[in-house]
Amino acid sequence: MLKAMLISCFLFTVVGNASVNPDSLILVSSETEDCLMCHSALHPGIVASWNKSLHASSTPAGSMKKEGHARRISSPKIDENLKNTVVGCYECHGLNKDLHPDAFEHNGYTIHTIVSSGDCAVCHQVEEMQYRDNLMSRAHDNLMKNSVYMMLVGSVNGGYSFLNQKMHISPPNDHTLAESCLYCHGTKISITGMAKRETEYGDMLFPVLGGWPNQGVGRINPDGTLGSCSSCHPRHDFSVATARNPYTCSECHKGPDVPAFKVYEVSKHGNIFNSSKSSMNMSSVPWVIGLDFTIPTCATCHVSLIVDETGTVLAPRSHRFNDRLPWRLFGVPYAHPHPLNADVSTIKNKAGLPLPVELTGEPASDWLINKDEQVRRKNAMQRICNGCHSSSWTDQHFERLDNTIRETNALTLTATLLISEIWNQKLASGLPQNDNPFDEAIERDWTKVWLFHANSIRFTSAMAGGGDNGVFADGRFQLTEQIVKLQEFLSRYKKQ
Amino acid sequence: MLKAMLISCFLFTVVGNASVNPDSLILVSSETEDCLMCHSALHPGIVASWNKSLHASSTPAGSMKKEGHARRISSPKIDENLKNTVVGCYECHGLNKDLHPDAFEHNGYTIHTIVSSGDCAVCHQVEEMQYRDNLMSRAHDNLMKNSVYMMLVGSVNGGYSFLNQKMHISPPNDHTLAESCLYCHGTKISITGMAKRETEYGDMLFPVLGGWPNQGVGRINPDGTLGSCSSCHPRHDFSVATARNPYTCSECHKGPDVPAFKVYEVSKHGNIFNSSKSSMNMSSVPWVIGLDFTIPTCATCHVSLIVDETGTVLAPRSHRFNDRLPWRLFGVPYAHPHPLNADVSTIKNKAGLPLPVELTGEPASDWLINKDEQVRRKNAMQRICNGCHSSSWTDQHFERLDNTIRETNALTLTATLLISEIWNQKLASGLPQNDNPFDEAIERDWTKVWLFHANSIRFTSAMAGGGDNGVFADGRFQLTEQIVKLQEFLSRYKKQ
Amino acid sequence: MLKAMLISCFLFTVVGNASVNPDSLILVSSETEDCLMCHSALHPGIVASWNKSLHASSTPAGSMKKEGHARRISSPKIDENLKNTVVGCYECHGLNKDLHPDAFEHNGYTIHTIVSSGDCAVCHQVEEMQYRDNLMSRAHDNLMKNSVYMMLVGSVNGGYSFLNQKMHISPPNDHTLAESCLYCHGTKISITGMAKRETEYGDMLFPVLGGWPNQGVGRINPDGTLGSCSSCHPRHDFSVATARNPYTCSECHKGPDVPAFKVYEVSKHGNIFNSSKSSMNMSSVPWVIGLDFTIPTCATCHVSLIVDETGTVLAPRSHRFNDRLPWRLFGVPYAHPHPLNADVSTIKNKAGLPLPVELTGEPASDWLINKDEQVRRKNAMQRICNGCHSSSWTDQHFERLDNTIRETNALTLTATLLISEIWNQKLASGLPQNDNPFDEAIERDWTKVWLFHANSIRFTSAMAGGGDNGVFADGRFQLTEQIVKLQEFLSRYKKQ
Repeated sequence: MLKAMLISCFLFTVVGNASVNPDSLILVSSETEDCLMCHSALHPGIVASWNKSLHASSTPAGSMKKEGHARRISSPKIDENLKNTVVGCYECHGLNKDLHPDAFEHNGYTIHTIVSSGDCAVCHQVEEMQYRDNLMSRAHDNLMKNSVYMMLVGSVNGGYSFLNQKMHISPPNDHTLAESCLYCHGTKISITGMAKRETEYGDMLFPVLGGWPNQGVGRINPDGTLGSCSSCHPRHDFSVATARNPYTCSECHKGPDVPAFKVYEVSKHGNIFNSSKSSMNMSSVPWVIGLDFTIPTCATCHVSLIVDETGTVLAPRSHRFNDRLPWRLFGVPYAHPHPLNADVSTIKNKAGLPLPVELTGEPASDWLINKDEQVRRKNAMQRICNGCHSSSWTDQHFERLDNTIRETNALTLTATLLISEIWNQKLASGLPQNDNPFDEAIERDWTKVWLFHANSIRFTSAMAGGGDNGVFADGRFQLTEQIVKLQEFLSRYKKQ
Repeated sequence: MLKAMLISCFLFTVVGNASVNPDSLILVSSETEDCLMCHSALHPGIVASWNKSLHASSTPAGSMKKEGHARRISSPKIDENLKNTVVGCYECHGLNKDLHPDAFEHNGYTIHTIVSSGDCAVCHQVEEMQYRDNLMSRAHDNLMKNSVYMMLVGSVNGGYSFLNQKMHISPPNDHTLAESCLYCHGTKISITGMAKRETEYGDMLFPVLGGWPNQGVGRINPDGTLGSCSSCHPRHDFSVATARNPYTCSECHKGPDVPAFKVYEVSKHGNIFNSSKSSMNMSSVPWVIGLDFTIPTCATCHVSLIVDETGTVLAPRSHRFNDRLPWRLFGVPYAHPHPLNADVSTIKNKAGLPLPVELTGEPASDWLINKDEQVRRKNAMQRICNGCHSSSWTDQHFERLDNTIRETNALTLTATLLISEIWNQKLASGLPQNDNPFDEAIERDWTKVWLFHANSIRFTSAMAGGGDNGVFADGRFQLTEQIVKLQEFLSRYKKQ
Repeated sequence: MLKAMLISCFLFTVVGNASVNPDSLILVSSETEDCLMCHSALHPGIVASWNKSLHASSTPAGSMKKEGHARRISSPKIDENLKNTVVGCYECHGLNKDLHPDAFEHNGYTIHTIVSSGDCAVCHQVEEMQYRDNLMSRAHDNLMKNSVYMMLVGSVNGGYSFLNQKMHISPPNDHTLAESCLYCHGTKISITGMAKRETEYGDMLFPVLGGWPNQGVGRINPDGTLGSCSSCHPRHDFSVATARNPYTCSECHKGPDVPAFKVYEVSKHGNIFNSSKSSMNMSSVPWVIGLDFTIPTCATCHVSLIVDETGTVLAPRSHRFNDRLPWRLFGVPYAHPHPLNADVSTIKNKAGLPLPVELTGEPASDWLINKDEQVRRKNAMQRICNGCHSSSWTDQHFERLDNTIRETNALTLTATLLISEIWNQKLASGLPQNDNPFDEAIERDWTKVWLFHANSIRFTSAMAGGGDNGVFADGRFQLTEQIVKLQEFLSRYKKQ
């Protein structure tokens, strides 16, 4: 049971945050006080970060008094033990003990290192439920259980050795996987035992965690829950402002396979954001268009609750990001209607491949949303666009995107017909040979067509600008260059 | 006629801008009030953006009382009807009705969607006149009427299909062009009829606009005027600060063909800008070196009126950006003296190609400024440099740029001799064959030499830094790599 | 001798800095007053920049009253002549006359253009001494005296001409070198005579400086001292805040050969920095974790004095950046233990090459720090990590880095075995032929493996994120692609 105490003068000194109002009675649990006693000195950065957070200066009971759009706690009921103290170390690291195989005894308390999305759901239940239906929550298995993608992973991350005039490729090791693909997709955290560590307070036992550290979006937590809320609300200030800043998204969405941030940066939106961000209010809930911001970030269009100054909702908050996504623009050879379910690891196309499209581009429709749902999602997105643009602007913008999806899919088909002919002619060894389709130079050229360039073009279209990312910067120039290389390879080496 | 009214309490509530001084009598026209009545609710972002603007809080009559460098209105006389109200929706969207084929009836008013540079010229006449002589105002025709560039456009943006073992290339469609090259160069806006749209206020008729949306620098407006002022002064706050921020330029000047922003970012200037921008005054007119800023952005050197604290002019404002540009550094195979006229679509070199240089690099001098004018422009630029640098620093900086222009032109000549020999030997099919010189892989390698790498090196030189953009980041490493590939291609395949 | 005067009203007007406290007696030397008399008008930007600096508003005598960690002057004793005036133009440009071959007479004073690190050492002795042991201080000779690297420089920066069907490569000229490699590595500044220049005050004589302008980290100054403090404390505000901003490092550390900033930007650290930098105190000395910042920049981990709120030192200030670097991660084919000495130009491996590793990856251990020193440095770095992370987090992070160093070194070995076989088979002409190993296309592919991709992967690992820089953005995708190309080249062309 948590015994609450008034914050002591001692603690005020330790955490040194002048912004806490000394007139209000902010209660820190005695357990958290115990944590802070040592950890303020051991990890001053963590404690200072927490101390800036709303968690440190408000209690669930207080937060639940907020009504309507201003409310941040979505769970209808919070346990009495948690309600009246601030959300401190122990309130999270001591939750749901029975569900945590990583729980361990530490100075008289049972705690766990990894605060899971399941722990966050104690107060933020709706967000966690929505997030479970978000494609991102399944990012680990969606990659690691897909036999086609795993051939790409093996070819990219494997160990290459050249022995006796022959190349040998060994599978990637766990450390390599954890810091490459799984940095974003999330690791599976395992507990392999306990180990003694020297500390400033003597030797102590801690669990040995495999796949740790990690904050990937599809992390599989020791308690079986999915995702790491700190992917986007990082460290101990759990800031809504950080999550709304586009930099958060850039951690995983800047590379050539998913260049959303790179495109945003040079879009009209990104330009105005960069030029005027100091005048934006990134923290207010709800987020009021016109009052708090006049330019969108990633979160504006994809996640946040947006209202106008009269309180009318332009977009409800949703951690099921798919809600406003008619299309899946990246990650597979062809853009296609969004998958029905977050778990796409069980999809099989007609050819038996674990892909939501055929190699010809035809969608594997049974696994994908239908036209009506696409329209519904597009309308939800357009409602936000129309906050600042006329509806004819918005409609014609989306016509262009539709055209670009068609055109880039057609270009991908051309590249795929070429590599297929190359495989058929046995000028390279790929799918028809039951061989890895990603491990020869000409196959990499084909891969770049859809994994890098078609994506870059589609993001540029979808975000209404960032011209060069659709043309000379990993765009159409490079896409058509790969097609020409595929064709010249075929011409040069084919059997007559 | 505009009937002016005091801003009503209603409007204050709607637009909610606390910065408007309630003591001053800010007048909004009754027409604009009518607009705001619906559009405040329909598009709160637009109205909030406008509400932050100087247009919303000042009248032409008031602005014209400002004397000397502080004056923002350059037209000597403003129509009485416009003078005494703020510059609201109707003041711009209702201007010059007779010149606007896109004008239409809307709730009793004749308005047009696209505010053209001609409309802005009502108050900002000098800027519009200067801009007409700026190469950028002709960006649409300078691209679309150039037969050589159009071969590049066709090869990059075309549709590639592989049928019956043969490749077919179809021309790019309008949507593709509008979001690729013409995103920056500007579309030609066409009106193809009227269409009914469902709105929250019932069905209404609106013109159908082709090439819309677009804010490209060389947009051809329905009234025949050139350019979109909102390229750099975007949306409805028409901010001088946004235009002075380098992010504005980055929208079109970050790709490998024109990497100005990419270079700026890692230059000494960009470093200091990023480290200290919060202390800069980006809005004041004139822009006072030392007081408002101690580090330049793009606009400082290329556009803005710069004075020192005594009022001495270091650089006059000019929207004819060429005024301080002795050289044209990018966009054509060789750097060359700046073109005489903004319209370069009629240039022909001795070989009959629409290029300002021969393929040997020799400038097509009849179409270009002469040495005297180059010196005059260099001096104008150096005057700004000398605001912060000694004249020996500045002189030696420009010596390096001259050297780099010579060296990169020589490298381009080498690459061009190689591709010419490849064409002559019929190892590829290009200009001598009257064939597209951009549609084979080895031709793309030649193209990268001058379209990407030589440019990157020259920008790095011109901006005194951003070392790696001249070396390993699309610079000399990559340029020489293409030359080596051209040479090896010729050696491998040439007839003995 | 310096005669000190009270700042006159005149000067206050000229420099216009309202932040100077008029109650304190800030003394400007009469020499500096003379400088300002003309140069305030000639170069208002320089004077305004200086005027913002601590140098302009404090005297050495005053600064030396600060005790302990707050002290910024490290020299134990400052000359009486310098102590009681602010650090103005003449105090730096008039120092150490006898040591300066670039000193010249200018309006009755003997001054020099280039303020060297030796001049800065008058007050900042410890920093200059530490910096001499920093690899960066030797960046000029470490490049220019290394015969292997100079083959790369020649191949990348040289002049290529194609004459009589043959390629000729001429050495890079001085201007090209100064703005490419030596922009970062630093030029050697030479004085070749005096030249007359027209000025606003009549003709004057100035020294002719070769290699100028330059602020490279290993600049060889006319007085023989090494480095330019303005590399990181640029222009005349000499700001600690600028040096702590990551943008400073980005000037030289963003390209593919050393992509530290590119990785930082999309790391968790970079994300939080970008999202919250407006709340950081970048200027305070010492830099207090928790109070001044909760997220590190480059300087936090590599240079700055970091204390907690109790004054406990997490890291001492060190301008010998190597102090916390167990490994050298970039710039040579294999990552290896850090060199013992800053001057690495004399290193020879067993094969006689000027490299700290064999071509097989074995370190040239005699020239490198040993395991104990590596552990000591790693511990020093981890102490900072542990300011915000648990020690298990930190330990496991470094395990991953160790794994990545092993894996990328193994991949580099594979690529090197392949290029060696290509050389042995005479399919290309490289080290066995005493020929340049960087001037053929297939050699460039080998070079990219270690110069670009292995580095990118290692930086991404070292900085705990920036996932795509280790995978699809110049990372493992591209590294393995080069290996595949090397292998296919060998297979295609080798003698049977």
